[in-house]
Amino acid sequence: MKTLETAIELIRKPNETVYREAMDRLSQQVRPAGSLGILEGLSARLAGIAGQLDVKLANKVIVTCAGDHGVVAEGVSLFPQEVTSQMVTNFVDGRTSINVLADHAGAKVVVADLGVNCDFDPDLPIFHKKIRKSTSNFARVPAMSPQEAIRAVEAGIEIVDEIQQQKPINLLGTGDMGIGNTTPSTAIIAVLAGMDASELTGRGTGIDDKGLQNKKDVINNAIALHQPDKSDPIDVLAKVGGFEIGGLAGLVIGAAKHGIPVICDGLISTAGALIACGIAPGARDYLFASHRSVEVGHAFMHRHLKLEPLLDLRFRLGEGTGAALAMELLDASTRILADIKTFAEAEIENVQEQP
Amino acid sequence: MKTLETAIELIRKPNETVYREAMDRLSQQVRPAGSLGILEGLSARLAGIAGQLDVKLANKVIVTCAGDHGVVAEGVSLFPQEVTSQMVTNFVDGRTSINVLADHAGAKVVVADLGVNCDFDPDLPIFHKKIRKSTSNFARVPAMSPQEAIRAVEAGIEIVDEIQQQKPINLLGTGDMGIGNTTPSTAIIAVLAGMDASELTGRGTGIDDKGLQNKKDVINNAIALHQPDKSDPIDVLAKVGGFEIGGLAGLVIGAAKHGIPVICDGLISTAGALIACGIAPGARDYLFASHRSVEVGHAFMHRHLKLEPLLDLRFRLGEGTGAALAMELLDASTRILADIKTFAEAEIENVQEQP
Repeated sequence: MKTLETAIELIRKPNETVYREAMDRLSQQVRPAGSLGILEGLSARLAGIAGQLDVKLANKVIVTCAGDHGVVAEGVSLFPQEVTSQMVTNFVDGRTSINVLADHAGAKVVVADLGVNCDFDPDLPIFHKKIRKSTSNFARVPAMSPQEAIRAVEAGIEIVDEIQQQKPINLLGTGDMGIGNTTPSTAIIAVLAGMDASELTGRGTGIDDKGLQNKKDVINNAIALHQPDKSDPIDVLAKVGGFEIGGLAGLVIGAAKHGIPVICDGLISTAGALIACGIAPGARDYLFASHRSVEVGHAFMHRHLKLEPLLDLRFRLGEGTGAALAMELLDASTRILADIKTFAEAEIENVQEQP
Repeated sequence: MKTLETAIELIRKPNETVYREAMDRLSQQVRPAGSLGILEGLSARLAGIAGQLDVKLANKVIVTCAGDHGVVAEGVSLFPQEVTSQMVTNFVDGRTSINVLADHAGAKVVVADLGVNCDFDPDLPIFHKKIRKSTSNFARVPAMSPQEAIRAVEAGIEIVDEIQQQKPINLLGTGDMGIGNTTPSTAIIAVLAGMDASELTGRGTGIDDKGLQNKKDVINNAIALHQPDKSDPIDVLAKVGGFEIGGLAGLVIGAAKHGIPVICDGLISTAGALIACGIAPGARDYLFASHRSVEVGHAFMHRHLKLEPLLDLRFRLGEGTGAALAMELLDASTRILADIKTFAEAEIENVQEQP
């Protein structure tokens, strides 16, 4: 619990003065005020976090957290659980979706095992943070104990600590891998928004109508059974969450602790961000939403976090793929703020050019 | 007329076989089918255009077409006409919005004068294609003659010809500059969609409610006065269009002639694309929509063209800024298609790794 408490204490507010300077500069550039839409406020937030107007997001890392889910026994997913560990191996080998899109964004991908249902070779170059092999089936018992939930969150914080010790980064992206993990993620937003799962549940990787109805029932029944306390994010995570979701929450808290902006990916990453901002409300200042996925619950998560996603490309993959693409828009926003000249700068240039 | 007729004749269909191979490959990659949303079909279209699966959009150019508009006499814009020529100079000097965002996307910006109301230094490094200093005020008389409309479109085609002669490109972006030019652009979609301007007209750079009502009236009255023939795009362009809109139409036709994908920017660029696809329906195969701006009419243009924009960042600037940002997504889509491994490729790797 010490790691988590310390992290929360270390979260500072971004620099409000620099944020206001940034908004001023944006309003004085050689273009109609507000004409670059949501990238403007974004660039000012990044400036406030960095404490300077010329922000360079040079070193970027995407951490893809993996875990397995006991609830797959209820038939909530198309794919067998083994795919989680296979995909972890694929991520390490490269040329999966997240490898390709992170490479395009100039970001490094690292994988973290929070609870995959297998024994990885200890030499596999991933963060080995397994809490347990797969959560329990929350259709019957809580997914994990409160202690395990805290350890999962702390594992995410430790990952950011370790990354910062190796080579400090300027931007963190979050991503997920875990067969069945849209089910706990949807359960989390259902609890936090106080909504019925039937309004929030999507098809994940592609279940049919019957499967969708089953998934809704599984989520609603689990919430009725365990009665998670929406004012206690650790209770929600323990009863209907997942190990990688805890890790993803820890990544957000860890980034905020280190003063690094963090961009969350799809439904599962954003579920982690919801838990993080519940535990440590100050983390919200460091959080950015990359994209809106086709999962119904995702938009409700963004509403809950008061975040506007940058992209809506009908992705439904996870891994960090949306975060990778959105990193390029964050990069572009920093250039908007720093590099577009103001009317005053243009005036000076014009005067200088005269003979 | 010869330049235009020849260009239309030279437009070929993209390679349908390669397109189908691309769609096949996308469905066999190590991820759920369809999980990368609209970037998948996009990458297949680019493959069909390039005639190969591994598309490299190495050389990118954005052409920003500038022109002035007689209709500004009706008070349809917040800014004075002089801003058009000032911004052309700013584009050449650098550090405007389009310079910064094109630089971020690895694209070169070139400016074209189609009808700015001033005499530029002939040595200014822009495409000098002035048809006339400003269109006429279409609240009273047609904006231009049919001959001028054709010359404006041909000027756009010539620009692409000249770019290709210098150093062939793989992707063309279009952008605009012209005080008052949301008015002719909105008039064009009103004619083509057969809709009343009151449903389509936006605030441009920021006119108030009274200004907005005036702008709607100006457009509706002009359409009632000139009765543009929606089946004759040159007639529409001549009566309620603009010189840079003609040039933007020519860019799309020129790109299609040379087999280059072309991504259009905001309301004005898309108005040009509408005229282009009206004149040369085959050009549509080479056309991509970058973003949806806050201008109401823009979504109707995309619907008319059956194109889905990639971004919705509440931009309302033009210049090619949305096209620049979207170029990075097109780039990413080419990597998705070529670089993400298929299940078969992963299998081969796994076999090879076994002792």
